[in-house]
Amino acid sequence: MAMVIPQRILVAPSGFKGSLSAGEVAQSIAQGIRRVIPGVSVATMPIPDGGEGTAELLAEATGGSLKKTRVTGPVGKPVDSHFALLGGENRGVAVVEMAAAAGLSLVPNDLRDPTQTTTFGVGELMKQAMDTEGVHTILVGCGDSGTSDGGAGALAALGAKIVDEDGAELPLGGAHLGAAHRIDLSGLHPRVNEVRIVLALNQHNVLTGCHGVARVFGPQKGATPEQVEQLDAALTHWAGLLTTARRELSSEDTTDFFTGAGTGASGGLGAGLALLGAELTPRFEALIDSGLAGLNIAEEVSSADLVVTAEGAIDFQTVRGKVPAEIARRAQEQGVPVLALAGSIGEKAYRVHEAGIGAYASIMPLPMDLEDALTNGAELLADSAERCFRLLLLGSSMGAAIAERKNSGLFAVAA
Amino acid sequence: MAMVIPQRILVAPSGFKGSLSAGEVAQSIAQGIRRVIPGVSVATMPIPDGGEGTAELLAEATGGSLKKTRVTGPVGKPVDSHFALLGGENRGVAVVEMAAAAGLSLVPNDLRDPTQTTTFGVGELMKQAMDTEGVHTILVGCGDSGTSDGGAGALAALGAKIVDEDGAELPLGGAHLGAAHRIDLSGLHPRVNEVRIVLALNQHNVLTGCHGVARVFGPQKGATPEQVEQLDAALTHWAGLLTTARRELSSEDTTDFFTGAGTGASGGLGAGLALLGAELTPRFEALIDSGLAGLNIAEEVSSADLVVTAEGAIDFQTVRGKVPAEIARRAQEQGVPVLALAGSIGEKAYRVHEAGIGAYASIMPLPMDLEDALTNGAELLADSAERCFRLLLLGSSMGAAIAERKNSGLFAVAA
Repeated sequence: MAMVIPQRILVAPSGFKGSLSAGEVAQSIAQGIRRVIPGVSVATMPIPDGGEGTAELLAEATGGSLKKTRVTGPVGKPVDSHFALLGGENRGVAVVEMAAAAGLSLVPNDLRDPTQTTTFGVGELMKQAMDTEGVHTILVGCGDSGTSDGGAGALAALGAKIVDEDGAELPLGGAHLGAAHRIDLSGLHPRVNEVRIVLALNQHNVLTGCHGVARVFGPQKGATPEQVEQLDAALTHWAGLLTTARRELSSEDTTDFFTGAGTGASGGLGAGLALLGAELTPRFEALIDSGLAGLNIAEEVSSADLVVTAEGAIDFQTVRGKVPAEIARRAQEQGVPVLALAGSIGEKAYRVHEAGIGAYASIMPLPMDLEDALTNGAELLADSAERCFRLLLLGSSMGAAIAERKNSGLFAVAA
Repeated sequence: MAMVIPQRILVAPSGFKGSLSAGEVAQSIAQGIRRVIPGVSVATMPIPDGGEGTAELLAEATGGSLKKTRVTGPVGKPVDSHFALLGGENRGVAVVEMAAAAGLSLVPNDLRDPTQTTTFGVGELMKQAMDTEGVHTILVGCGDSGTSDGGAGALAALGAKIVDEDGAELPLGGAHLGAAHRIDLSGLHPRVNEVRIVLALNQHNVLTGCHGVARVFGPQKGATPEQVEQLDAALTHWAGLLTTARRELSSEDTTDFFTGAGTGASGGLGAGLALLGAELTPRFEALIDSGLAGLNIAEEVSSADLVVTAEGAIDFQTVRGKVPAEIARRAQEQGVPVLALAGSIGEKAYRVHEAGIGAYASIMPLPMDLEDALTNGAELLADSAERCFRLLLLGSSMGAAIAERKNSGLFAVAA
């Protein structure tokens, strides 16, 4: 039977949380594909989502380096952290992953109080990056945050003074912002005005109100209903101060610090850094379209016969800005078919077809508990990629077999 | 993107044990396919394996009827049972499913002693079938048996007398066969010589020796190591008696009752009924090739663009005579591609590719325990058929897209 075999495949997956990094996912998928089509050209492009693992992934992808350091963690104690200095054509770009200094996983379970946690360490990372020779741009990955301090901690670390009516500096943590009176930028680190700051964030996150960070993310970060209201009031007050301070810096500025797109990213880090003129950019636009991070997805897609993407779960949330949907939309623009793999196919997963994912499959080979699945992720993924590629080739050969019978009038072509 | 869509699909699955009948499996798969290709012609042909469900399936497939009755069960107590009278072009064929009278599931857990269980009820079913007007052939489905009596019980029910040295009839059960002295066929039911008896069985099962029923199946039917040896000795003695008795009936006969192909089927029912001149036929040859049971797989395959088969598990055992492999071999002969679905993809499942299964997939969408999987089998199966067909069509469209780029020198065709 004749079979049309893909020659060039792009593997562009996310990581599988709790199991595999995006790079490991890409390797496993490539391995499974090669079992079916031994000589095929497989390009792997692990895709970061701005959250945990983003800095390391981009350092690796560009041949850059990961700078290890210690900064103030989200609960005020020092934590091991890092930022990336990109290499190759992206030399001069530093990647600060906010989760590496203020991520939820750095907040001990018994201290999960988002009214008290701080992004101070994020500002420290940024400062270190600014002080590194040659750095002209800082790409800040937002995601997986454990804070809701409106970015006040990061500003403080960069030299801003946030003071109360008596001119005294406020303690760290979002809850105290209600007592803030003024943001004094006179002591700001001098490099802030020379370095381009780009945030990779989810634009749907806004700082205040019904869809604000306190109400949407407060509960999952550990806030009680009372704390949620307290926090929202404090952040609303804070947004007013940011507006005033920004106007003082730049009278023409019209930034909406209350409900502007992305202001609520990472517990309001978006709003805080917007005071410094940071660009609040949709996550994947910043990470994979901008060229800042060395990932040129459009070019890789254009030379692929097929794109394979993946994420831990595919469900109704996938179309709302998750890696597989974002990759698929970019492939769809160029008419390249997309297959998505997932550990778990959840509710209303079929919606991803709209985003350009032609088919998806679960990596599960048999009834199995979650722990086993997480432990054996690499093998399960390679095996399922193999199974899927056999299905794809079966489809290809079926098509060819039907085409051979074309003259018998049994042929159908759908556009 | 152009897409070559299959016009006619044959769905020929086995049942999923503990979850769905073969008919239910076929319906679920058809449902999933139609979600992807709404107007497609889907022929469903549920495939029996000779074991539980075979009689009912074939009655339904041929428009025949299921005769409910009561017979002696494997531990000597009456059980509800049944046999099928086929309809349509197969009128005159009765199907006796041995498991319906002597199946392992009819043996209570605390009575699992294969040295004592009997096939007497199987003989009773055969007798009732013979006594039914118009019946000229009895197709005996072997599989899922709970007995190891060398078919002695079935012979007794059909009028044979198995006596010891003193001429006394032996009690039922394989353990007693060591004391058998002679098989007296003078009282045999008169219809036995007028009716054709065809056994659908696994030819690899032999009555005695290292690969005999006592050693291979005794332990899983509940025999202790000592009982296994006792039983093998008894069955070896029994094979000698069967040889003598058969020569008396037909001096030219050369049947090897000890290790002849299929003599060990259903605990030796094969050997016992061979005494009556029954044809010991490979399971799927009898069930789906012979025309006896109304399933004309070759004809259905010949008009299909694709065959979908399925079984509860696909693993290294599948190529050894399980439904998906048997269906695939028949499809392979005609060059029709085959997809197989399974609840569980087990060890060395890849061996099925040799049998002509181009691709296989698990129905599991996410980590899940076995009980949930069994309970939700129908839905899981339909959903996975849908996912697989999207993959097949993706493969088809990928092939078409590559073909369009043919002139750019990037086209590959494999034979």
